[in-house]
Amino acid sequence: MELRSRRFWRSLLAEVVGTLIFVWLVLGASFGPLNVLQVALAFGLAAATLVQVLGHVSGAHVNPAVTFAFLVGAQLSLLRAVFYMVAQVLGGVAGAAVLYGLTPAAIRGNLALNTIHPGVTLVQATTVEIFLTLQFVLCFFATYDERHNGRVGSVALAIGFSLALGHLFGIYYTGAGMNPARSFAPAVITRNFSNHWVRRGRQGGGAVPVYWVGPILGATLAGLLYDFVLCPRMRGLAERLAILKGEQVAEGQAPPEPPGEPMELKTQAL
Amino acid sequence: MELRSRRFWRSLLAEVVGTLIFVWLVLGASFGPLNVLQVALAFGLAAATLVQVLGHVSGAHVNPAVTFAFLVGAQLSLLRAVFYMVAQVLGGVAGAAVLYGLTPAAIRGNLALNTIHPGVTLVQATTVEIFLTLQFVLCFFATYDERHNGRVGSVALAIGFSLALGHLFGIYYTGAGMNPARSFAPAVITRNFSNHWVRRGRQGGGAVPVYWVGPILGATLAGLLYDFVLCPRMRGLAERLAILKGEQVAEGQAPPEPPGEPMELKTQAL
Amino acid sequence: MELRSRRFWRSLLAEVVGTLIFVWLVLGASFGPLNVLQVALAFGLAAATLVQVLGHVSGAHVNPAVTFAFLVGAQLSLLRAVFYMVAQVLGGVAGAAVLYGLTPAAIRGNLALNTIHPGVTLVQATTVEIFLTLQFVLCFFATYDERHNGRVGSVALAIGFSLALGHLFGIYYTGAGMNPARSFAPAVITRNFSNHWVRRGRQGGGAVPVYWVGPILGATLAGLLYDFVLCPRMRGLAERLAILKGEQVAEGQAPPEPPGEPMELKTQAL
Amino acid sequence: MELRSRRFWRSLLAEVVGTLIFVWLVLGASFGPLNVLQVALAFGLAAATLVQVLGHVSGAHVNPAVTFAFLVGAQLSLLRAVFYMVAQVLGGVAGAAVLYGLTPAAIRGNLALNTIHPGVTLVQATTVEIFLTLQFVLCFFATYDERHNGRVGSVALAIGFSLALGHLFGIYYTGAGMNPARSFAPAVITRNFSNHWVRRGRQGGGAVPVYWVGPILGATLAGLLYDFVLCPRMRGLAERLAILKGEQVAEGQAPPEPPGEPMELKTQAL
Repeated sequence: MELRSRRFWRSLLAEVVGTLIFVWLVLGASFGPLNVLQVALAFGLAAATLVQVLGHVSGAHVNPAVTFAFLVGAQLSLLRAVFYMVAQVLGGVAGAAVLYGLTPAAIRGNLALNTIHPGVTLVQATTVEIFLTLQFVLCFFATYDERHNGRVGSVALAIGFSLALGHLFGIYYTGAGMNPARSFAPAVITRNFSNHWVRRGRQGGGAVPVYWVGPILGATLAGLLYDFVLCPRMRGLAERLAILKGEQVAEGQAPPEPPGEPMELKTQAL
Repeated sequence: MELRSRRFWRSLLAEVVGTLIFVWLVLGASFGPLNVLQVALAFGLAAATLVQVLGHVSGAHVNPAVTFAFLVGAQLSLLRAVFYMVAQVLGGVAGAAVLYGLTPAAIRGNLALNTIHPGVTLVQATTVEIFLTLQFVLCFFATYDERHNGRVGSVALAIGFSLALGHLFGIYYTGAGMNPARSFAPAVITRNFSNHWVRRGRQGGGAVPVYWVGPILGATLAGLLYDFVLCPRMRGLAERLAILKGEQVAEGQAPPEPPGEPMELKTQAL
Repeated sequence: MELRSRRFWRSLLAEVVGTLIFVWLVLGASFGPLNVLQVALAFGLAAATLVQVLGHVSGAHVNPAVTFAFLVGAQLSLLRAVFYMVAQVLGGVAGAAVLYGLTPAAIRGNLALNTIHPGVTLVQATTVEIFLTLQFVLCFFATYDERHNGRVGSVALAIGFSLALGHLFGIYYTGAGMNPARSFAPAVITRNFSNHWVRRGRQGGGAVPVYWVGPILGATLAGLLYDFVLCPRMRGLAERLAILKGEQVAEGQAPPEPPGEPMELKTQAL
Repeated sequence: MELRSRRFWRSLLAEVVGTLIFVWLVLGASFGPLNVLQVALAFGLAAATLVQVLGHVSGAHVNPAVTFAFLVGAQLSLLRAVFYMVAQVLGGVAGAAVLYGLTPAAIRGNLALNTIHPGVTLVQATTVEIFLTLQFVLCFFATYDERHNGRVGSVALAIGFSLALGHLFGIYYTGAGMNPARSFAPAVITRNFSNHWVRRGRQGGGAVPVYWVGPILGATLAGLLYDFVLCPRMRGLAERLAILKGEQVAEGQAPPEPPGEPMELKTQAL
């Protein structure tokens, strides 16, 4: 049972701390007059750093859409996926709250809240989110693909630069969500849930949860495209189900246990 | 016969999807007031991400000039080269069309159409395209050279940064084509084929297809320079012909089949 | 005894020279109208270059907070840590002095002195320094973790980009210290010790040594978080003490002696 | 005898073509209103791309100061060093000439000629060149050090980013020479040899060849510092002399002959 494994809780802690640091850093680096390149690189370097620090601990998803895609690809258990997503949302909100407390009111504005730019329709915004997350999650899948055997260069930079790329495109459309935890966190702090709920009443709030539907759809498409079409895994349904139930560990998901932890490998339980 | 291999069609799909995403992202990231560094990095990161995602599937050429150079170097079959180039052009046009649909008219302008800057002659423009593509395709050949045995660092970043470099130089001359699929796509959508056909009549349209001749010449030169002079391959004419006919696979072209696909390796046919 | 090892003094020289070059380059690259991205990348590329050049000699800490964190993690001896920190502070001051001499007075201004921005309280400033250094030192620990076995991509870039990231966030809060040697050096040259001593009198000088307490606290937290929680090392107290006393070498600290130095390995003493 | 080896002439061609492309690209990317970050990254990406393309052919020095440092470190023969330096200077001038021909007069200005900025003395300028080249050549030596055994991440990026770093600092002092071939090329085309000859008469021309003395001194210092102090090579004088005479190949200099060239290895002569 995963819940009794120390490694599981360590992963969860990594996702909380990772998303906290991620959201805190990227929102803070977005203050001031808009400089698209600077903001995009901040997102990219933040993702790269977190993958570098936490990739071998939890996978460093720090993004519910990424976790969802790995769930669809049967690369982690349903239980772990749910815990990860909750951890990411909570970590993100905590990061935004810390940032709020640390920043003089004159600077923090709307806390880099993602909004749909004027003239962009809801359909356009959702499609942009789908495409941006699709390329990002494709990059995540390809880079984490254990069948590569080390031919991928720097894992951290590949993922980071893909996120930066998404922002170079998306900032003028939707602010570039690509990560519900990142979009949701400032919405909670500023109490502005446009485009997060299905309906928020009639005062002009968003009618579609663009920042959730877009990234999750895009991530799912990416996972299916990579794992079933571009680089198909020959795994039977039984194996997939066993992984989803947590009875078996997917190759791609759990990076090889680093040496030096033999003790835990034996006792595995708290 | 390649046409009956599932892997072949997967490669083709990768080129279509890859060029679609590439063109869509880079054109979209070029909107707004010109920021050369930002545009150049968008091109670079897009190429890097696609090489990361699709490099082991199709080679991630997403560029007819690159495919042409690999054909000249006898690193893929004629059949595959032709299909790749058609796939890239179609994918690129699809990417531009998607972008057109997603972008408010006020922003999309001429869809980042490549044009020759005032004062630059056709000869200068063509030469610039030749040189820019030459360094880019040299980088492609060197990085994909299977004789390196992993001493190349990050394949994706090397290629991406070489493309970014070309844009840092070329934007003020020709917009930095270096890729006929990228140049052609907005030309189709905006119905402005200057510098794509040999003659478009007398209303001032381009008299030379700069965006096709330049990149393809530069890529060919790069392929010849790398494979015959700088790092010569000792392959006989018979071997080269066999590869071009698709009877044999070039070492450099087909990355080692990733483990986990034993089934297909046996049946290879649809 | 480490003091009699030629390798020890070479490490020390590396830290002096490294911090000199680092401080000299990053302060100089900060002159002129503030361009956050440019300054952040200068810091990042400087750290990356020094890790590349000196990482296998001394670890390329060039930062007392980093050395302190490795001390807390029992990855180097107390003696070495103290010598490193002194070397870094002296090297940094020398770098700032060289820069002062090389730069026309009209340009050098306050020599890129770190100051707390108006509106930011001391508590906010210290917390920002803690968080920024935490992510940076986490990246240092994860990247230098010898249990990774080469799965980390480019060590130098990972560390450099993490430092760049910190500056993308921190410049508008505290100037982004993250390194007491970097903050202290221009303070010495310009004789402005605000936020370096606990009390400097009543003329408005800082009441808290923000640029020392923040980074060192953040680095310590990072070291504890990484080595005890996220990626725990199974080392007994005796082993830790032996390392701190210099009687044993930690795995993570001393990179494998490069081949080609057999002579020294035999004589080891001056 | 090296002169009869096909590999030798191939290296030389690589240095000519490499310096031509390098100088052409970096000067061209420097036109327009000064954007320090953009220019610095253009230099960095150009160096990275050339190291990627030519590193395994000739070492991709494309810089007489780098070649000189490797000569001082006895890592290549005197003959090869002299030929390399001549090739680099000629390639650089050719690159500047090509650029001149390709660029409308209104844009090309002084062809990105390096000049000492007002207020910077000759001593300051020379010292800046020494320091900038020192860090760059240190990075070259550390990255090319064959004793690393692949622990260096991306060779190309490390060297490129170190060059970019030098420009982030040096543009406001001397334009950031760091490479006599790069500085000399536009001087030839624009016939402005200030700071290239020892004396150019009394019309205010430079009295010291800053762009030659600075980089070569800095490179020499770097070579000595790395090879004798930081990471000493245990090689006797006899071995060093044999390498300088071309009777023996240094380990660090000649990257392992890539597989697939057995034919040439046997016949080695033209």
